[in-house]
Amino acid sequence: MNKTIIKLALATSLALSASTALGADKLLLKTPIAFSTSLPGLGSPIPRVAEQLNLMSGGTLKMKVYEPGKLVKPFEILGAVSSGAINSGYTTAGYWAGKIPASPLFSAVPFGPEAGEYMAWLYYGNGMELYQGMYDQAGYNVHVLPCAIIAPETSGWFSKEINSKDDLKGLKMRFFGLGGKVMQKLGVAISLLPGGEIFPALEKGAIDATEFSMPAIDKRLGFHKVVKYNYFPGWHQQATVFELLVNKDVWNEMSGQHKALTENACKASMTDSLAEGEAIQFEAMQENIDKNGVHIMQWSDEMLALFKTTWDEVAVEEAANDAYFKTVLDDLTEFRDGYKLWKENAFLPRK
Amino acid sequence: MNKTIIKLALATSLALSASTALGADKLLLKTPIAFSTSLPGLGSPIPRVAEQLNLMSGGTLKMKVYEPGKLVKPFEILGAVSSGAINSGYTTAGYWAGKIPASPLFSAVPFGPEAGEYMAWLYYGNGMELYQGMYDQAGYNVHVLPCAIIAPETSGWFSKEINSKDDLKGLKMRFFGLGGKVMQKLGVAISLLPGGEIFPALEKGAIDATEFSMPAIDKRLGFHKVVKYNYFPGWHQQATVFELLVNKDVWNEMSGQHKALTENACKASMTDSLAEGEAIQFEAMQENIDKNGVHIMQWSDEMLALFKTTWDEVAVEEAANDAYFKTVLDDLTEFRDGYKLWKENAFLPRK
Repeated sequence: MNKTIIKLALATSLALSASTALGADKLLLKTPIAFSTSLPGLGSPIPRVAEQLNLMSGGTLKMKVYEPGKLVKPFEILGAVSSGAINSGYTTAGYWAGKIPASPLFSAVPFGPEAGEYMAWLYYGNGMELYQGMYDQAGYNVHVLPCAIIAPETSGWFSKEINSKDDLKGLKMRFFGLGGKVMQKLGVAISLLPGGEIFPALEKGAIDATEFSMPAIDKRLGFHKVVKYNYFPGWHQQATVFELLVNKDVWNEMSGQHKALTENACKASMTDSLAEGEAIQFEAMQENIDKNGVHIMQWSDEMLALFKTTWDEVAVEEAANDAYFKTVLDDLTEFRDGYKLWKENAFLPRK
Repeated sequence: MNKTIIKLALATSLALSASTALGADKLLLKTPIAFSTSLPGLGSPIPRVAEQLNLMSGGTLKMKVYEPGKLVKPFEILGAVSSGAINSGYTTAGYWAGKIPASPLFSAVPFGPEAGEYMAWLYYGNGMELYQGMYDQAGYNVHVLPCAIIAPETSGWFSKEINSKDDLKGLKMRFFGLGGKVMQKLGVAISLLPGGEIFPALEKGAIDATEFSMPAIDKRLGFHKVVKYNYFPGWHQQATVFELLVNKDVWNEMSGQHKALTENACKASMTDSLAEGEAIQFEAMQENIDKNGVHIMQWSDEMLALFKTTWDEVAVEEAANDAYFKTVLDDLTEFRDGYKLWKENAFLPRK
């Protein structure tokens, strides 16, 4: 826990005991978030969750959403929820990669599952048990609930065509999660900036390229004004999961009714966020083509194969370095090996 | 409204005013269902919805689920909910095809959207407005909520390989929805039997072949004991939506809190049912291969093209016969034409 959080914890500990317990059966979840609520799919789900909790509970369970940095900085939410400085937070597990190596596996896996398969593993495989177990084992006092999911991201924004490994070398690029480790291994200098800091960095030339999210989200951040080559498919994030973290003592004290309300609001949010994410990308892409001079690019088969073999190497290394990473990856891989029989037979081709 | 329903309406009208209004702020939804709760993905979602409604509402909003035929027959649920004979029901819109030609478009569309795209159109396109508008315009007094969705079905079960149009001709087959109209045009004699009646019909030879649902669901019904060729992909139902119908007067009288609880329980059920459906198919398929002597078959490109061109003909005919069908199909088609740009770029290949 760093000094800011300790100060915050001290400053708010008294206030919280009053503000979170509005009465014997009332609760206010004060929820800082990692993504601006203006970002559709990333930030937009959580105000909906807050609204529905209020409606469903008749006002006994409220959530107050704080924009990124207003109460806690995006990358400090986990620590703050765990310490009890705040009682909840909305973010994505991969932001804790520096502290918990396995955490990005619960955000997005390169060449990993799409939304349907990911949710299948989480809710009907061992995913949720491993997800909660990860925080428990790492000593964080939090209860975790998946609370949004989005369909594929784009592979990122570049100032030029990327046709070979050589074209990647030496690039300075914002990149998230395990995909970032893949890019790093391919000679890219990686930084992980939160959403709000990316555009200024691109504009100043501090970075040459960036990935962030889906086209409609990236559009809000204005990347297309600086870099015109937008690559697909998003091999690094075919689906991304977002989490609501609740301080575990607070969770344990919640009534069964409030727990059920929170669980259902988050599960409903999975549906809503997936649907919203799928609904609004094509217009953003079309506008990028028609008005913004953006080139919609597809990775060549060779580049996709390069990313895949590099990811396989990264996965082996990460599993060798961290036992829990290995446990999760092995479980997910076993699930996916089985799922393959279904996947390869059940669906129509997409093109 | 047929005589059975009228009798039922008379018999239960007094009882209902007591049983559905437990008090000023209490409600019991008596919910007959079209699919046995023993069928995972089809019937299993609704007992979960009932359980969660009870937990979330602290017992003020309850749902009592009635197995198929116990209170109302599967194909009579819409009429019974509309008349007020019962206050709710769980089924799928395509069962009303005989009364409302556009209804199957809200169950499953041949060569139509997968779950993500379908939910995108329903919740963030014009889908929900058209869905409710369909019942309103057809004179049914119901409020509709999508309350479950499943990933692809299999294309059906046959006693022999189907390699050409000639192999289809003269088959007697159970088939649902718009896919059934395609098969009919290809010379198949179609019947629409509810789940429980299919196996006996296969066993007696009243039908030669059947489609019903996903492998784990079909397994429960035992089709593999009679017919050994299981075809994929399910071109006729890449995703299937299930609906909770609530009598509109009952819905309008519900408090905002109870409405929000029902809406969120159903949206959470969309996540759950999609995840469950995706999670449990591969084991069923593997067991079919290993223990049941089932041949997992893929349609040839020629057969898929035949189904596609025949569906295009059916769609034109249905649209010419019914204005609302045309309205819905045109809207969905426009949405899908846009979505294509996203779909063809964003996803990794499945094989």
